[in-house]
Amino acid sequence: MGTTPLETVPEPKYWHLRTVLSEALDSEFEVGEILPNERDLAARFGVARATLRQALEQLELEGRLQRRRGVGTTVAPPRVGVAVGTREHTWPGTADDAWQPADCHLAAPPATVADALGTDRDAPVHTVRRSRVSHGLPVAAELLYIPPSSVPGLTAIDAPSGPARARAVLRELQRGDLERQESSVELGSAGADDAKELDRLPGAPVLVVTTRYLAEGRTAALSVATYRADTCRLTFGDLGDVEIHHGPRTQAS
Amino acid sequence: MGTTPLETVPEPKYWHLRTVLSEALDSEFEVGEILPNERDLAARFGVARATLRQALEQLELEGRLQRRRGVGTTVAPPRVGVAVGTREHTWPGTADDAWQPADCHLAAPPATVADALGTDRDAPVHTVRRSRVSHGLPVAAELLYIPPSSVPGLTAIDAPSGPARARAVLRELQRGDLERQESSVELGSAGADDAKELDRLPGAPVLVVTTRYLAEGRTAALSVATYRADTCRLTFGDLGDVEIHHGPRTQAS
Repeated sequence: MGTTPLETVPEPKYWHLRTVLSEALDSEFEVGEILPNERDLAARFGVARATLRQALEQLELEGRLQRRRGVGTTVAPPRVGVAVGTREHTWPGTADDAWQPADCHLAAPPATVADALGTDRDAPVHTVRRSRVSHGLPVAAELLYIPPSSVPGLTAIDAPSGPARARAVLRELQRGDLERQESSVELGSAGADDAKELDRLPGAPVLVVTTRYLAEGRTAALSVATYRADTCRLTFGDLGDVEIHHGPRTQAS
Repeated sequence: MGTTPLETVPEPKYWHLRTVLSEALDSEFEVGEILPNERDLAARFGVARATLRQALEQLELEGRLQRRRGVGTTVAPPRVGVAVGTREHTWPGTADDAWQPADCHLAAPPATVADALGTDRDAPVHTVRRSRVSHGLPVAAELLYIPPSSVPGLTAIDAPSGPARARAVLRELQRGDLERQESSVELGSAGADDAKELDRLPGAPVLVVTTRYLAEGRTAALSVATYRADTCRLTFGDLGDVEIHHGPRTQAS
């Protein structure tokens, strides 16, 4: 890595350091390689450890570095493209569905969910918890809310909860006619449950994808899925694998 | 706000405080209201200021709070839904386009962009800088890369740069036949130029939307747009305004 003096630069020091480090990651390091320790890095670039840490945090946010307890800071592999909008008109639970049902229970959802579903706030809905794995890594955790009116043929014979129940609910859901789905993406942070499922600490940044499934003019199901923001790039469209972004873009000069 | 003792909780203190504060924001505060200062808040909840700050940072990341210099910490309005995938088959620059061209120049793009466009790495492409405003606020900054082969009829008569040149390039681009567009969304951080345009500090979290426009089987243009992650919820689909998420979701109980 270079030893560019950082004293004369007008932009924040940590930001300039981030850029220098980012270039070093491209040119001198391999994916998975462990970075020198913080003290050595700080000395090499002539910066305070607080500045170094800020730059490392920034690069972690951008998915360039991974901090793993007991290992240290390693160079992250490129983000995994995860298709979110490809199967535009597919109900949850079809054969090629990327999600694994983990659990199901009947309970009143959060008030905002009840409002979006158009159900009474204290009315119980089927809540299916599902998880998504890509290339062997957990990438997303989902809660799928399904009002009883969307699964009228559901029998009470099945188990009241668990994966079998989840599958029964999804099977019934698929008897309806999906008209359309709408999604939104926003930045959030992982709650305790999600963090555990995604192998992250609570508060880790996640991309929250909310999807509304519409049938017969009303919301038949609502999905709130949290994707790991450090490892995932969400793709929309048929091919949907546009892999361009690499840290903050710089104006072509 | 309550005064729940935080000492007995097993989850990280700041995380529990975040939840308590989040509930207080819902029940006791109006949008735009200024929060008490950090010392008072820390005293009220019996936590160290470092813990309080962590919780406030978390809520800022989630778009619940805004920190404004000279004003203090205020309760943020709900995120603005910004349509990203509605006009699936619209070229940039049509009449109902949400973007304002600001500048245009001809230069070699970043290597990753050249690779995606299938142009030589040192071959110049038209680079249009555009910005997007929603409800009077800057929400996104974009660089749109257009290889000269996508705008064969472009004359050299127009100004070599500036908004007029940008409009001329977009006009020519629209003579082609758009076949498809693909997008991806990922977390990034604002570079110096973007930060200025978005009225944020460098390093602020942004949602990076990369869109590839395909015509006659090849990539005719590539857009890299950064959206403010604190104020924007990106929507995909026809109605596309699913407004559910409110901080980290909790399992319905």
